[in-house]
Amino acid sequence: MKKMTTNQAIQYKDSMKVPEPTLRRLPWYLSNVKLLKQRGERYVSSTQISKEINIDASQIAKDLSYVNISGRTRVGYEVDTLIAVLEDFLGFTDMHKAFLFGVGSLGGALLRDSGLKHFGLEIVAAFDVNPELVGTTLNGIPIFHSSEFEQKMREYDVNIGVLTVPIEIAQCITDTMIAGGIKAVWNFTPFRIRVPENIVVQNTSLYAHLAVMFNRLNFNEIK
Amino acid sequence: MKKMTTNQAIQYKDSMKVPEPTLRRLPWYLSNVKLLKQRGERYVSSTQISKEINIDASQIAKDLSYVNISGRTRVGYEVDTLIAVLEDFLGFTDMHKAFLFGVGSLGGALLRDSGLKHFGLEIVAAFDVNPELVGTTLNGIPIFHSSEFEQKMREYDVNIGVLTVPIEIAQCITDTMIAGGIKAVWNFTPFRIRVPENIVVQNTSLYAHLAVMFNRLNFNEIK
Repeated sequence: MKKMTTNQAIQYKDSMKVPEPTLRRLPWYLSNVKLLKQRGERYVSSTQISKEINIDASQIAKDLSYVNISGRTRVGYEVDTLIAVLEDFLGFTDMHKAFLFGVGSLGGALLRDSGLKHFGLEIVAAFDVNPELVGTTLNGIPIFHSSEFEQKMREYDVNIGVLTVPIEIAQCITDTMIAGGIKAVWNFTPFRIRVPENIVVQNTSLYAHLAVMFNRLNFNEIK
Repeated sequence: MKKMTTNQAIQYKDSMKVPEPTLRRLPWYLSNVKLLKQRGERYVSSTQISKEINIDASQIAKDLSYVNISGRTRVGYEVDTLIAVLEDFLGFTDMHKAFLFGVGSLGGALLRDSGLKHFGLEIVAAFDVNPELVGTTLNGIPIFHSSEFEQKMREYDVNIGVLTVPIEIAQCITDTMIAGGIKAVWNFTPFRIRVPENIVVQNTSLYAHLAVMFNRLNFNEIK
């Protein structure tokens, strides 16, 4: 690692590679602390969160050590501060702009889900080749022809692509996205896409989750 | 384990508790094999799948050993059979009926996503308390008042609940669902729900996935 100035060191700490399990648990703590706030609590300890959500207090304290916040002995973390710091740390307060590729059933559903905005993701435009969709808007979001992607990349300040195309073209569209300058792909297809090392892929396959749920359900019924 | 008859043994094998990573990878193989079929392939080996999706061939063979299919030396698996067996094994060919709770932004989006039906999940009714929604339908799916849940449980043959309510009521609605006979909860809220041991929970927090993606993106930009 190169020697860093103090400012760089702080910036580096803020954006260190946090383990994925920690990043997945932090939103649980956030939603729980929001709930405690609604109940009128002003301070919260990791022991309190632990009781609510059944995760070891030591694990919670360790996860929270990645976040730039310090609790006070006996009193714990101040609720308002913890919420603000967690939302900021998780990237929910910055607005990240994204393009969506493939306005089918799931793609259309995501365009309609305004909830993503509250968690820092704004889909600013979508792409498809269906002549019935191109030129229209969905939930206020314009749908362009896929051939317009490169031009739109220059117009919008976007670095995330949401992939909701049929599996046959999942790899091809991914390659196009990346050639156009997309840095992160949120892959909703059940297809395993290949990307260069510097590109982020987040796989969210609803179908894989269904498979796990069906298997567990079936297992419980038989046993 | 009790001694089983052959039929029971087969049934038991079909519904054994398959490791979650395997269940998450199998849909990748399925989509890949579907693609190979479109390209005109009649047989496929684990080595071939391995090259396409960059997972060790030995891992693929191991994962496929859970599925009731045998390949032929040198030739591999017959494509049509492998697709049929995988779809069946993953539960995508049976139709599992589900109720959805909370017709907000994400809930409404899921009701509109007809794609879930192709993977074995049919949302047959939804519940909310919003007087503007109760009594209407969305994508042909009726929306009932939450107070009608117990009655509807007796009318419909449902054992899966999709949870898309605000975090404040996530636990309360979960408890109601389970008291009414729901056996598996597909939890889309960022809230960690508590359930009895015999109840299946599948967490799919889009927001947790966003947090992981934002962190990785930020890390790549700084490094």
